[in-house]
Amino acid sequence: MPDAHRHHMSPDEFRRHGRAVVDWVADYLERVEQLPVRAVVAPGDVRAQLPQSPPQHGEPFAEILADVDRVIIPGLTHWQSPNFFAFFPANNSGPSILGELLSAGLGVQGMLWATSPACTELETLVLDWVVELLGLPDRFHSDGAGGGVLQDSASSATLCALLAARERVTGGDAALAGTDQPLTVYASQEAHSSVDKAVRIAGLGSAALRRVATDERHALRPDALATAIAADRAAGRLPCLAVATAGTTSSNAFDPLAAVGEICHDERVWLHVDAAMSGSAAVCPEYRWIHDGLEFADSYCFNPHKWLFTNFDCDCFYVADRAALVGALGVQPEYLRNAATATGAVIDYRDWQIPLGRRFRALKLWFVLRSYGVDGLRAAVREHVALAQQFAGWVEDDPDWELAAPAPLNLVCLRHAGGDAVTQAVMDRCNDSGAVYLTHTRLDDRFTLRVSVGAWQTRREHVVALWQRLRDTATAVVADAD
Amino acid sequence: MPDAHRHHMSPDEFRRHGRAVVDWVADYLERVEQLPVRAVVAPGDVRAQLPQSPPQHGEPFAEILADVDRVIIPGLTHWQSPNFFAFFPANNSGPSILGELLSAGLGVQGMLWATSPACTELETLVLDWVVELLGLPDRFHSDGAGGGVLQDSASSATLCALLAARERVTGGDAALAGTDQPLTVYASQEAHSSVDKAVRIAGLGSAALRRVATDERHALRPDALATAIAADRAAGRLPCLAVATAGTTSSNAFDPLAAVGEICHDERVWLHVDAAMSGSAAVCPEYRWIHDGLEFADSYCFNPHKWLFTNFDCDCFYVADRAALVGALGVQPEYLRNAATATGAVIDYRDWQIPLGRRFRALKLWFVLRSYGVDGLRAAVREHVALAQQFAGWVEDDPDWELAAPAPLNLVCLRHAGGDAVTQAVMDRCNDSGAVYLTHTRLDDRFTLRVSVGAWQTRREHVVALWQRLRDTATAVVADAD
Repeated sequence: MPDAHRHHMSPDEFRRHGRAVVDWVADYLERVEQLPVRAVVAPGDVRAQLPQSPPQHGEPFAEILADVDRVIIPGLTHWQSPNFFAFFPANNSGPSILGELLSAGLGVQGMLWATSPACTELETLVLDWVVELLGLPDRFHSDGAGGGVLQDSASSATLCALLAARERVTGGDAALAGTDQPLTVYASQEAHSSVDKAVRIAGLGSAALRRVATDERHALRPDALATAIAADRAAGRLPCLAVATAGTTSSNAFDPLAAVGEICHDERVWLHVDAAMSGSAAVCPEYRWIHDGLEFADSYCFNPHKWLFTNFDCDCFYVADRAALVGALGVQPEYLRNAATATGAVIDYRDWQIPLGRRFRALKLWFVLRSYGVDGLRAAVREHVALAQQFAGWVEDDPDWELAAPAPLNLVCLRHAGGDAVTQAVMDRCNDSGAVYLTHTRLDDRFTLRVSVGAWQTRREHVVALWQRLRDTATAVVADAD
Repeated sequence: MPDAHRHHMSPDEFRRHGRAVVDWVADYLERVEQLPVRAVVAPGDVRAQLPQSPPQHGEPFAEILADVDRVIIPGLTHWQSPNFFAFFPANNSGPSILGELLSAGLGVQGMLWATSPACTELETLVLDWVVELLGLPDRFHSDGAGGGVLQDSASSATLCALLAARERVTGGDAALAGTDQPLTVYASQEAHSSVDKAVRIAGLGSAALRRVATDERHALRPDALATAIAADRAAGRLPCLAVATAGTTSSNAFDPLAAVGEICHDERVWLHVDAAMSGSAAVCPEYRWIHDGLEFADSYCFNPHKWLFTNFDCDCFYVADRAALVGALGVQPEYLRNAATATGAVIDYRDWQIPLGRRFRALKLWFVLRSYGVDGLRAAVREHVALAQQFAGWVEDDPDWELAAPAPLNLVCLRHAGGDAVTQAVMDRCNDSGAVYLTHTRLDDRFTLRVSVGAWQTRREHVVALWQRLRDTATAVVADAD
């Protein structure tokens, strides 16, 4: 029989090609600033350049890498560009990329403690480190009834919070099947769409979600929450979960956690705090106000894959009482039974998440925390906030522009005085230029530009150039309209 | 202000450290055969060797990598060892690892077509390639109403299938909230635990799952399925989803897809086929019988991260009609609206999955398909099957051992003639030796060893040595018992 192993890449070939890819990535990070930030392709362009069938015979690695340059790169929007100000940060970093490489190379499965103990124990440790790093409540540390786990995303964390909340309020799914009390969920009008998605996935029906009114700062109004819960109780419904947001995606609004938390505590409603985009700010003591009242939360998440230099996917999810979570998600078929699980002395993270399998994701976060240190992370986050604050100051000082919302951290929402059409035209022209990339939202029913500062290569010069471009483009747009 | 950027790893540092990690991984793949396959640590051992707080100052990269050797490696179970025969394959490969590295380095977000068109278009293309590669039904190709998407795991795919099925059968979640017909789900007694998990997550309640009886080959009995559906209809319930398994985890049983499919078609029950562990076999035309009847399926999944040399996570999930899936999972907040989505001409994969965000996972699968080619993948899969078949033959020929189930592909289930205690003692001693790693299941209420052949470095010599070790250990166990 011919040697089937000749088709596998040998360790020596891996060394050679691996160096090529490392260099390619280093080159990419050096030249990404020069690339058009937003992809410049039309639908179908990328696919049209590639064969419609898989190759019969293996191809040289260099040819594949060349196709990345030829076909893939023009079709990408460059989230690591220092001129990327769209959506939210999704930054990576050298240590994180190398942690991901190591995880892929080790190829271990962390579904159970027994299937790779270090995968589980490092994750628990790193999640405990983060409790200290962000100054989170002790109840989220693994030395008590709570603890943390890595999820792929805040969407999944929100879903897990809902499932745990349902488990607690119904006493388990057997009870649920027989209940005739509809469950209800609460979040502000500005909370993330993942709350809608979780409510639908969990089968509560979209109508179970109450979108609670916000105040003039786009933060949840506790009085409106209390009224909504009371109305549901009066109607025989069973309030289950409230999601408070510490930094909304749209405008970086912060819900009043203490006031919300007191209501939830009194009403025995599970409080999940979603700090996906902004939680990283709490590495700096001076920004820890964003978590004031978090001691009331039953669960919490934030995304190192947004603003803590850890490539997607990496969401830190904490619960104060892991019993409800494990109760909602635990399963134990025979082929996964093992002595360590039977003792109860270990964590099996499969019971803390939607999927069964899991890779060694803690490695990259560990690499980041150790490479930067607490000091380095603080310096990097502070610089982003300082740049955004300078930008916000320029907006405030310019009569042609206005801030559309408070800008407490690294997101600035702004509008041109010329109205929605001008603001949108400025955004479109800036994006079409390829020099920067911005996205929008609607606040108070007006078209609003969002400037999110958080790519790791973004420096003052990029923010200065952005502001200059916005003003120049606005001048041109207004002139064209006259 | 001090330069905050000094904390970031520069591209030149990345080159240097990146080469070190590439070499580390190459060394690991070369030496993994020498390591004890199963981790040799007790609960808490790994954590006890690491600081309980994050470092205040950044640490040199070399120190972190040294800790991987010192602390992490002894705490790992080595899934890439050629002597790993436990659970199921979870193989990686050089091309896949490098695809993951590139994905981490690019750091793009593929939640929408617009957020990185190449990320979406390459994924659709590669999933279409796989339709051809495995000879899957045309209805799963993206040129019609169906199409494929990468999920993190088969568990998530099963959940998505259930949500799409629920969407179809109830006409959307608004209707669901008002329905008084309980939904029901069907799967064999041997189907994966992820079906239980999905049913619970979706809020149907565990009681909604009917575990249908199996035949003497541990495959689902279509008559039992038909009876269960009829009984539920008679009781006023609404049959929603059936999960058929093409290769059960426990014993590699194959449910009769055509017979199951005809029932589901007649009953308008969504048929999901879970080929997570074994679907990769269909790269070889001679093993495509595993998918006989798949043309009846509404959805299908298999895991390249199990047996197709693509590191976790990478599950290929297909639907015949994407409208139900997108109907179940679509959300559209203002800050994600964009021109491309509005045209309807593009795929936004956020609406095909539980999370919102997604990384560029298609790259690694593309790298694998191109590096191996169809020929290379077939050769590698054929070799694993051939090795397992040789092993099964040795078992059959040995009076002290017996096959516990048919072994159609690369999983062999066996028992010692001395009974459960001997079989279990043999497994425990073999695992304790560190030379191999095996896991068990229960079949016909008897303790059963599972030998799963699928690590990419496994060759004939490893399977020969395993058989020798099993026989020698059994001799010793029996002698000790006398």
